[in-house]
Amino acid sequence: MTDTEFYRGRRVMITGGLGFIGSNLAHRLVQLGADVLLVDSLIPDYGGNLFNISGIESRVRVNVADVRQASTMNYLVRDREVIFNLAGQVSHIDSMKDPHTDLDINCRSQLTLLEACRHHNPGAKVVYASTRQIYGRPDALPVTERHLVRPTDVNGINKAAGEYYHLVYNNVFGVRACALRLTNVYGPRQLLRHNRQGFIGWFIRLVLENREIEVFGDGSQIRDFVYVDDAVEAFVAAGASEAVNGEAFNVGGDEHIAHRDLVAMLVELAGQGSYKFIEWPAEKKAIDIGSFYADSSLFMARTGWAPSVPLREGFTRTLSYYRAHLPHYVDQGSV
Amino acid sequence: MTDTEFYRGRRVMITGGLGFIGSNLAHRLVQLGADVLLVDSLIPDYGGNLFNISGIESRVRVNVADVRQASTMNYLVRDREVIFNLAGQVSHIDSMKDPHTDLDINCRSQLTLLEACRHHNPGAKVVYASTRQIYGRPDALPVTERHLVRPTDVNGINKAAGEYYHLVYNNVFGVRACALRLTNVYGPRQLLRHNRQGFIGWFIRLVLENREIEVFGDGSQIRDFVYVDDAVEAFVAAGASEAVNGEAFNVGGDEHIAHRDLVAMLVELAGQGSYKFIEWPAEKKAIDIGSFYADSSLFMARTGWAPSVPLREGFTRTLSYYRAHLPHYVDQGSV
Repeated sequence: MTDTEFYRGRRVMITGGLGFIGSNLAHRLVQLGADVLLVDSLIPDYGGNLFNISGIESRVRVNVADVRQASTMNYLVRDREVIFNLAGQVSHIDSMKDPHTDLDINCRSQLTLLEACRHHNPGAKVVYASTRQIYGRPDALPVTERHLVRPTDVNGINKAAGEYYHLVYNNVFGVRACALRLTNVYGPRQLLRHNRQGFIGWFIRLVLENREIEVFGDGSQIRDFVYVDDAVEAFVAAGASEAVNGEAFNVGGDEHIAHRDLVAMLVELAGQGSYKFIEWPAEKKAIDIGSFYADSSLFMARTGWAPSVPLREGFTRTLSYYRAHLPHYVDQGSV
Repeated sequence: MTDTEFYRGRRVMITGGLGFIGSNLAHRLVQLGADVLLVDSLIPDYGGNLFNISGIESRVRVNVADVRQASTMNYLVRDREVIFNLAGQVSHIDSMKDPHTDLDINCRSQLTLLEACRHHNPGAKVVYASTRQIYGRPDALPVTERHLVRPTDVNGINKAAGEYYHLVYNNVFGVRACALRLTNVYGPRQLLRHNRQGFIGWFIRLVLENREIEVFGDGSQIRDFVYVDDAVEAFVAAGASEAVNGEAFNVGGDEHIAHRDLVAMLVELAGQGSYKFIEWPAEKKAIDIGSFYADSSLFMARTGWAPSVPLREGFTRTLSYYRAHLPHYVDQGSV
């Protein structure tokens, strides 16, 4: 069955549906003909942005709600066939300042959603957005799913617990679920308003505002990046596949690059901005994990998915998007 | 420095201090001359039992409190030099029926205790009682700390998160902490009232009441067992060691045995009781992990600890203890 056949008329739900990946996924699912329900809390600074569904407003249903609210989730999951579970608090720094809130959103809410499915819609399929952050500092590269889970911050711990819940609910209660451990996702519709949700969006904003990027240390730390359209295709594939249930998969890019080279490429592609090297801030260094890139071959083998957008192409598209829409991602009043 | 030198006059606190391992640890720390504060919620059915401190009542301070209560924990940790963090909801079955309560106690409360230390007593040393349950079904035996964390139930997930929090608070905030992944601990002062906290206490009760033990399947599943006095010595060693900070260690027995042989030994040692084999109940089978025994050599090398009580000796002592005190562990009115 093709994705179009699978998703046409399919009742799907995306938690965090107005956020970065969630909204890009919404665009794709609308294109595939799905019946799309977006659930988002629109908590300021978390990434939800109504502009993200510009162009598909009339073809999706938006329900503003917080995934922490059990009775709401019990209701909303009822008729949904595939649930893309992307709602989260994604700032590592915030998680260390206010660990209880991170726990409520990334840990407790996952149980709430899964309990909602268990008791009100056990036939639902759930695809959970996990993160490479759960691995912590890698023992060796590339990192496979056999690598120990060893988070370096509270956010990583809670994301790991959220992921484990999904696998246990699959194995014990038959709520089909899997987890995608995303590496660094970049592209249109990402929050650029502050720098607490990772560096990539922030770097893009700085070059577009012709400002100077500060690269920590010598910038030699390596990451792999996955363009958001490729990440979206991974969710689409996982949602339609029965071969992924009960497992967690790396989903990363097939190119990896040092921070300094990435920044140089951004400045070159933008034709503006600059960068300098600075010493590591202590609070960032304490939770840094050095170089990281993932081996995504397990997910590729299982689903046929593969990243298709090269780095230069992805960043060219990204810069072009934000050039056209920057105020919607920078101004406080845009949400 | 000997343990006696280290603990004499040392201000220690035990969460879950009226429970099985906590109260045995209290007896030992009193013997070592420590200033012992026991914190316990005395929630019915969880294992806390005032009879457990019979004989040392006048030499410990008992504070009834729930580790979920942040302001209380903020106060209680203030002057404590070593905190043995053993409070927990330990029933796997309960965690699958009411996962949110398990999360609050095993996950959220650990953050609460660590935040209390971070903000009110960052010099405290914390030793966390983790569990072999976080490994799930082993890929190979014996299980070392390099084995993947892959819990099979909600309790295991929340215990894993609780453990990770301790290591992150050690690494990022300098609150010295370590975790002991205990295998099957047995001995005096364990809850025998119901069978939701593991099979070993329940089996002991059944033989003492001359009843029939039901062994699931063919009883071939293997476990290692650690006598509670040995587990206590592991906590004592970890609390006094700076060489364990920031790490998690297996703490198991050096003998492993199949369920059927264990049951036969219990019946033989007790001179009463019997057993039969029955089919696995579905709810237990779903979260069963097959055979398990741990490799505890890392902790042994790091601290010099080693288990010293052989199985037959340990179970002989255990049966003798409960023969003398069974009503305190069986009757509803005893707590």
